[in-house]
Amino acid sequence: MLEPEARDARPGELPSPYLLFLGDTVEPGYAKTAFGLRDWARERCVGEATLPGATVTTGLDRLTPAEAHARGARSMVIGVANRGGIIPESWTASLVEALEAGLDIVAGMHSRLADIPALQALANRLGRRLIDIRTPPTIIPTGTGARRSGKRVLTVGTDCALGKKYTALVLARGLQSRGIDAQFRASGQTGIMIAGEGIPIDAVVSDFLAGAAEMLSPAAAPDHVDVIEGQGSLFHPSYAGVSLGLLHGSQPDLFVVCHDPTRAGILGYPGRPLPSIEEVIAATIELGRVTNPRIRCAGISLNTSGLTDDQAQAELDATEARTGLPTADPMRGGPALERLLDACAQ
Amino acid sequence: MLEPEARDARPGELPSPYLLFLGDTVEPGYAKTAFGLRDWARERCVGEATLPGATVTTGLDRLTPAEAHARGARSMVIGVANRGGIIPESWTASLVEALEAGLDIVAGMHSRLADIPALQALANRLGRRLIDIRTPPTIIPTGTGARRSGKRVLTVGTDCALGKKYTALVLARGLQSRGIDAQFRASGQTGIMIAGEGIPIDAVVSDFLAGAAEMLSPAAAPDHVDVIEGQGSLFHPSYAGVSLGLLHGSQPDLFVVCHDPTRAGILGYPGRPLPSIEEVIAATIELGRVTNPRIRCAGISLNTSGLTDDQAQAELDATEARTGLPTADPMRGGPALERLLDACAQ
Repeated sequence: MLEPEARDARPGELPSPYLLFLGDTVEPGYAKTAFGLRDWARERCVGEATLPGATVTTGLDRLTPAEAHARGARSMVIGVANRGGIIPESWTASLVEALEAGLDIVAGMHSRLADIPALQALANRLGRRLIDIRTPPTIIPTGTGARRSGKRVLTVGTDCALGKKYTALVLARGLQSRGIDAQFRASGQTGIMIAGEGIPIDAVVSDFLAGAAEMLSPAAAPDHVDVIEGQGSLFHPSYAGVSLGLLHGSQPDLFVVCHDPTRAGILGYPGRPLPSIEEVIAATIELGRVTNPRIRCAGISLNTSGLTDDQAQAELDATEARTGLPTADPMRGGPALERLLDACAQ
Repeated sequence: MLEPEARDARPGELPSPYLLFLGDTVEPGYAKTAFGLRDWARERCVGEATLPGATVTTGLDRLTPAEAHARGARSMVIGVANRGGIIPESWTASLVEALEAGLDIVAGMHSRLADIPALQALANRLGRRLIDIRTPPTIIPTGTGARRSGKRVLTVGTDCALGKKYTALVLARGLQSRGIDAQFRASGQTGIMIAGEGIPIDAVVSDFLAGAAEMLSPAAAPDHVDVIEGQGSLFHPSYAGVSLGLLHGSQPDLFVVCHDPTRAGILGYPGRPLPSIEEVIAATIELGRVTNPRIRCAGISLNTSGLTDDQAQAELDATEARTGLPTADPMRGGPALERLLDACAQ
């Protein structure tokens, strides 16, 4: 059921540089893709485009599609993801404008660009491409649970959108800089755009979840380390199934719990508290044992972007003292990150 | 992406009576669909068809497709499910024979009959239907986790294929016979064939798992009870994600743990032990609290079909004494089942 375009859309071939489209987003947590590309593929981003009402910004130049095209952009990337992955009608005029300005469109949502007839017709007429990146491989086996060679580290979380991808990217690069044969494994659309490969786990048919995760981090040399981007949370009311299938298929030796100490509750679900770090550790070990009896927690990654330096240090120290586990904000680096890398390199 | 045929294939319209196709199956656990239809829709089954090598039987008359057609059969139902839901090539000759004998074909596997070109071409030529029942609704929202009215009972398990569907069917009928407004909610292909409606949860795209479960047991009158067919196990290396999404979306008030005391390990995964009933209870409560803080275990359903009457009674007594929970084999009935129904009716 794959469209040829989608099958051809290997991220390595994505038309860049990009214009990052933010829609009318007011919730920074929903702009993960735009921020991820800005932070990890900055050289491929020429600017951002928004609709009236947007308060979220990447800090890049705000450009019209025509201005972006004049600066060399070859595609507009939809840089926001809302619940359910819908492409709202209010975006259509901007998408049309981008096509008319000479840009292809790249999206990683469940709604497929190619399923919007007017857009597809216009793209066909203008010779532009609509590239839907959230398309899993056509053939995925069910999981086997069989132990495979190589080492695996999985990032897990107390919620969505709080640092699992960034943590995995920093850990993979940090291990590589120590001479370890480490690789970032992308399980979501932004990670796939950054890495150039991966599997959009949440777009896989449920019965094949663990099997897809097994494909994502295949058997490897004994000293190879896959650092796998986690998804969701075992305690998330909508997406926990994805998290559990990814955990079982990844059969990680080590996991790192990602948490945002400033988040009051589950993002987008008012009144729902986050699980504690300790609850996530306990549940991850209990369920992770099914496919890897030796699973253990390597440490904790705190997203302290909402704190001052002093507040962040106090939070990191308190969490490390309370849990007895190396605790770092990967984006702040420093000795704490080195201790977390030590734990992941064991 | 739904074929019109699949969209039309509401189970209530399935062409019956059925001939039950068992392939060359030697593992009774894989013949759930055939046994389910024999036990719960016996009036719609005229016989069974097998390939050489099959050792599994429903006990119904063994018929060729032509003989079944002569007895009034209108379709051949694929009554076995293997890992991954593949339709093996060794079945093709039998499927062709059925079409040529005048039967439609009904399947509930991930592999779609309609995707086998030779079969589709033959069906078109002969005017027969290929009905793929494992097709979820086209539009499913993501889960919200919002509390909804009505009561829900979910069957969960220590493994696949050990009695979650039968237990839910018996409990729903038992509650109905007490005058309670209870309804069986089918989450798998056999249940859907029996009930005439439902959602094949394991065929839903992962991100929408909990949302599909929310659709399956919608808000209802305060005293209405949905008895929801569980899937897999939280401790299953391949399918646990499905189980967790179904748990969260069902937000059950009560759950019943289904277990087969004679099963040595996870079906089809040699060397992998089953979780204990107690582990399943603890994990179900811990994770189920995310969407229903009042979740609790109503009791235990033991599949004692492999035991003598005395052995079964001893096992039921021992389990009830150990756990302090009502423990019954729903297929044996008796006072134990009444106690389990008491617990579910609270």
